[in-house]
Amino acid sequence: MRIGIIGGSGYTGVELLRLLSPRRDIEIVFISSRAQAGNRVDSLFPSLRGHVDLSFSDPDDVKDAQCDLVFFATPNGTAMYQAPALLEKGTKIVDLSADFRLQDISVWEQWYGMEHHCPSLVAEAAYGLPEIHRATIRDAQLVANPGCYPTTVQLGFLPLLEAGIVNTDSLIADAKSGITGAGRGASVANLLAEAGDSFKAYGVAGHRHLPEIEQGLKGMTEADVNLTFTPHLLPIIRGIHSTLYAQLLEDADLQALFEERFKNEPFVDVLPAGSHPETRSVRGTNVCRLAVHRPQGRNTAVVLAVEDNLVKGAAGQAVQNMNLMLGMPETEGLLQPALMP
Amino acid sequence: MRIGIIGGSGYTGVELLRLLSPRRDIEIVFISSRAQAGNRVDSLFPSLRGHVDLSFSDPDDVKDAQCDLVFFATPNGTAMYQAPALLEKGTKIVDLSADFRLQDISVWEQWYGMEHHCPSLVAEAAYGLPEIHRATIRDAQLVANPGCYPTTVQLGFLPLLEAGIVNTDSLIADAKSGITGAGRGASVANLLAEAGDSFKAYGVAGHRHLPEIEQGLKGMTEADVNLTFTPHLLPIIRGIHSTLYAQLLEDADLQALFEERFKNEPFVDVLPAGSHPETRSVRGTNVCRLAVHRPQGRNTAVVLAVEDNLVKGAAGQAVQNMNLMLGMPETEGLLQPALMP
Amino acid sequence: MRIGIIGGSGYTGVELLRLLSPRRDIEIVFISSRAQAGNRVDSLFPSLRGHVDLSFSDPDDVKDAQCDLVFFATPNGTAMYQAPALLEKGTKIVDLSADFRLQDISVWEQWYGMEHHCPSLVAEAAYGLPEIHRATIRDAQLVANPGCYPTTVQLGFLPLLEAGIVNTDSLIADAKSGITGAGRGASVANLLAEAGDSFKAYGVAGHRHLPEIEQGLKGMTEADVNLTFTPHLLPIIRGIHSTLYAQLLEDADLQALFEERFKNEPFVDVLPAGSHPETRSVRGTNVCRLAVHRPQGRNTAVVLAVEDNLVKGAAGQAVQNMNLMLGMPETEGLLQPALMP
Amino acid sequence: MRIGIIGGSGYTGVELLRLLSPRRDIEIVFISSRAQAGNRVDSLFPSLRGHVDLSFSDPDDVKDAQCDLVFFATPNGTAMYQAPALLEKGTKIVDLSADFRLQDISVWEQWYGMEHHCPSLVAEAAYGLPEIHRATIRDAQLVANPGCYPTTVQLGFLPLLEAGIVNTDSLIADAKSGITGAGRGASVANLLAEAGDSFKAYGVAGHRHLPEIEQGLKGMTEADVNLTFTPHLLPIIRGIHSTLYAQLLEDADLQALFEERFKNEPFVDVLPAGSHPETRSVRGTNVCRLAVHRPQGRNTAVVLAVEDNLVKGAAGQAVQNMNLMLGMPETEGLLQPALMP
Repeated sequence: MRIGIIGGSGYTGVELLRLLSPRRDIEIVFISSRAQAGNRVDSLFPSLRGHVDLSFSDPDDVKDAQCDLVFFATPNGTAMYQAPALLEKGTKIVDLSADFRLQDISVWEQWYGMEHHCPSLVAEAAYGLPEIHRATIRDAQLVANPGCYPTTVQLGFLPLLEAGIVNTDSLIADAKSGITGAGRGASVANLLAEAGDSFKAYGVAGHRHLPEIEQGLKGMTEADVNLTFTPHLLPIIRGIHSTLYAQLLEDADLQALFEERFKNEPFVDVLPAGSHPETRSVRGTNVCRLAVHRPQGRNTAVVLAVEDNLVKGAAGQAVQNMNLMLGMPETEGLLQPALMP
Repeated sequence: MRIGIIGGSGYTGVELLRLLSPRRDIEIVFISSRAQAGNRVDSLFPSLRGHVDLSFSDPDDVKDAQCDLVFFATPNGTAMYQAPALLEKGTKIVDLSADFRLQDISVWEQWYGMEHHCPSLVAEAAYGLPEIHRATIRDAQLVANPGCYPTTVQLGFLPLLEAGIVNTDSLIADAKSGITGAGRGASVANLLAEAGDSFKAYGVAGHRHLPEIEQGLKGMTEADVNLTFTPHLLPIIRGIHSTLYAQLLEDADLQALFEERFKNEPFVDVLPAGSHPETRSVRGTNVCRLAVHRPQGRNTAVVLAVEDNLVKGAAGQAVQNMNLMLGMPETEGLLQPALMP
Repeated sequence: MRIGIIGGSGYTGVELLRLLSPRRDIEIVFISSRAQAGNRVDSLFPSLRGHVDLSFSDPDDVKDAQCDLVFFATPNGTAMYQAPALLEKGTKIVDLSADFRLQDISVWEQWYGMEHHCPSLVAEAAYGLPEIHRATIRDAQLVANPGCYPTTVQLGFLPLLEAGIVNTDSLIADAKSGITGAGRGASVANLLAEAGDSFKAYGVAGHRHLPEIEQGLKGMTEADVNLTFTPHLLPIIRGIHSTLYAQLLEDADLQALFEERFKNEPFVDVLPAGSHPETRSVRGTNVCRLAVHRPQGRNTAVVLAVEDNLVKGAAGQAVQNMNLMLGMPETEGLLQPALMP
Repeated sequence: MRIGIIGGSGYTGVELLRLLSPRRDIEIVFISSRAQAGNRVDSLFPSLRGHVDLSFSDPDDVKDAQCDLVFFATPNGTAMYQAPALLEKGTKIVDLSADFRLQDISVWEQWYGMEHHCPSLVAEAAYGLPEIHRATIRDAQLVANPGCYPTTVQLGFLPLLEAGIVNTDSLIADAKSGITGAGRGASVANLLAEAGDSFKAYGVAGHRHLPEIEQGLKGMTEADVNLTFTPHLLPIIRGIHSTLYAQLLEDADLQALFEERFKNEPFVDVLPAGSHPETRSVRGTNVCRLAVHRPQGRNTAVVLAVEDNLVKGAAGQAVQNMNLMLGMPETEGLLQPALMP
């Protein structure tokens, strides 16, 4: 299969290459970057020396490249311009940006601060969370790869909302992300000297992943959904830990509920009762690891969910979606153990 | 004033010395440690070279030392044996351990797994959170210095509970602590190789600070209090960030409420509306810095509270209490700016 | 091929499992640990959930297990007792400890502070640095896997010493290691609270890797060798960076010299002139990445050498040696790209 | 005394404020920053809330401010334009940039890539390393504050070169700096995601501190000086560790030599024989801590030198110089213990 990567000089770009370059069943036809055009990929990312023998292409030079599937690892607002032409010629798309994630165009435009260029495609796009939308993804031409936070929060709440045993009007997601979630752009706030050996919340007043998560949660229940979502910045490279709180409406065996819901999922791992997942236990892998607690036997369920924000939260899930869309085994190229310690 | 420190080879011990050694109004008469007896303090803690010209004493050798005030920086279960004799001879005590924090002896015995040796002193002890109990502390012979988490959680919820505007039956404290909170004991879990570049929750099923916090919160309100408290381990040296959630029962100007409550407090700093305090902004200082939010204008109040767990969360608050108990200015020796970056 | 791992509860143990578990050409017959006997491996190392379906064995219970090759991931002084019986029954051995590294028994006994139990095997053991001893390793029954520091220092000096163009009497190796080099034992010095956000040298008066390195360097030259070796502790998880200094005796094209020496080596990567390798560029891989400089065109050659201390510095090199000893492709299972960022 | 700070939005600016704001003997008249003009200082640096009640001034607005002394915390190439007018009106200057550090103008112009605007002042400027130039500094109108690396390297080599017991033709300084040494500018290379959990050398071919150090070393000896200087980037916030190597020409009691040389120096601390200073032991303080070794009793002296690059390596030394220039006690405001852990 012939694969292209548009916008490959960021962290999701290098991560796609890390996951795809060892595979013999696909060929990376191009990786583009306007800023890095002409430079060797392994000059920017020495970790890929010996693995990727490509230079970055100018985006304009690869418009006619024939690919079976193209990944967009571009900033928000790019894929919506280029997707139509690619779909037209039969190229499938996995978009790692947010362009096709929100079904309500006006909500998207409000949170992303721009006009949507092709609202018509939004309705056609599958939301790329295979644990919920696997069948749709298989048949999709265009997949909107979920955000990093939304993956953990949706997977963590899923069994509770499907079972209808929690009050969906006061859900809380206290989420913490490693710094790669902020991307590879130069910024004072993300310097090691600023973000190292420290911790803070950010975007408490409102974060773009809130509407994406609420949209997903609403799909799991008949009830109204009201989520308080608080993102925080961790001084670690990779990893998201979402701590989820829900008020129980009735008694239930939460451990059994979670194990049952995910028993056939290759990339969701429910830990034994009483466990606390560490972000490092999924470093470099496509696994979302969960634990569920009911502290003091009271009425609050607490779910702990970890993932590698660059893998299950971005590039790994994108490859999982690619595998589904191209009829390959879903787990192909995604089964290596985590790098721990 | 003559000061003694019992159990000084841990992090609260070295921190007490950092804060006290520059002062001319007090004399450190001894610092004891059974394990380090005979060793120079600045051999164990080279940061104190030139500042502390003492060796660790054997605890048995300092029983007759005359002090105005003694700090216990010992493990739980030690101060309760030694406090009576000291009080007897008129020595005041600030206990940084948990021995005198819980008024309900049976609850204490359940959470700390031992029999309490002198329940009668518990009732006499003042709980050393000056922002709430200042007058009592001034007159106390024995002060139970609060835990690190409880300080942020109580200060953060205080204005909301005193005002009676939140549902106290579903309070949530999602708290994150730097690794010094785990103490200086050798342990695999706290190795840099284990806790570095990672993040996890711990003690979700139950943590000793839960009853301490709930006792404090109950003192602020007539209503029942039900708190879900989730501690997490941050890969940073110093700092606690508590993210607090409460459901609002009525509308209120939260920013004004917080500013008003703490306007005369030298060590509580309410940030401007919309702010996000960083743990590093209080590194090395006795300040608890707060921000209050009401995301999306919905019904959930979100309070962000940071402190240095070794200062306002331990040794600094202990010195603040000492200042009050000895009739010194409350802020003496505690006003240096934070070390940032 | 049937493989056993003796002493598997440390970092080299879990790293061997990370590298070996995905392979279909070998079977891990047992992994032993006296302390963890009976516990599931993936309970201690959750990163291996779904990858390793084994419990730790008691070492005494696996003495009769039939294996083609056994790894010793034990503390120094263990393999020398157990190796003879294994070799007797035809089992090959890769020893990751130091028991068979030093040919001079008296030097070994001086640095390791114990009597050597089987000096006779030392002479038979191959020193497992394939870039120098590949042929010997292929035929060996017993391979002494090199230390982490010695791998980088020997590879970095190799072209200079073989070419005979430096003064070998004043070599300097300023080496820096991530904290996993200190192992998984509980210790105050390696706590995140102690070693984090700080840096120091250690063992300047003498480190056990000095005689190992000097033995290796002496094998590269006719001249006397005198090395000053200064190890330092980095606040990172994985990675060694050795900065090597040698006084040039004559002019030479250092870049060409290095590229030529390693052009056929799959796991040594010489960077372009002017480069500075980062430890993260080899995180999780078996590559040693080198750069050579001649600052200001003066007479000092400066070599920069990085490796992952747990991979090329330990478990990865052990697997490379296993591949050679068992007649498998040398790079089998060792070609995944580094985890970067 | 009236003090001004020009260019105060970087790390040396905030550090000057941390050190100066608690003092009652000086008044900070202004702090300027073109980019931050009009913004409150404690808005940019919340750690200074309650300590600094100033807004950043536009540099053009403070040209007529009357000050006893002005600090330049500006990028290189700024102070040389503004110094003449200030000196003209009797204002003393401590320049934390490199404008007046190198006596050889052509060397300066080569390394800094610009024409020097006022070479005449260079000869008048004192080099602000009090341990060597104290008397000159006391009388100077203009002090060139040393670079961060040069302070440790010069102090560490000083006793050896003054005693004339080492070969000055093959000196080596292997230096490692925390990330604040790179300043507060936005840059990809210094992101936590790039520089965290990793380590590398940089500028091996040539670094601007090389000529500064060599100039200083030449002042200590009659012999020729040839230094190989290799800077590295540490994933820590503050701290420099320089590991220095020199070949001994004769036998000597190195420990006694170092202790004797620095016995009256308030900010140089020679550790007992066999010690290894940690960078954290000087975090936040103006101390340079040294240890000297002679590994294996061979001919190489190894000096370990640590400092806080923002204090003794920048703002602290600048305050030390200010104290000398204004006739205040040299240690005023600089004696607080380090923040450790």
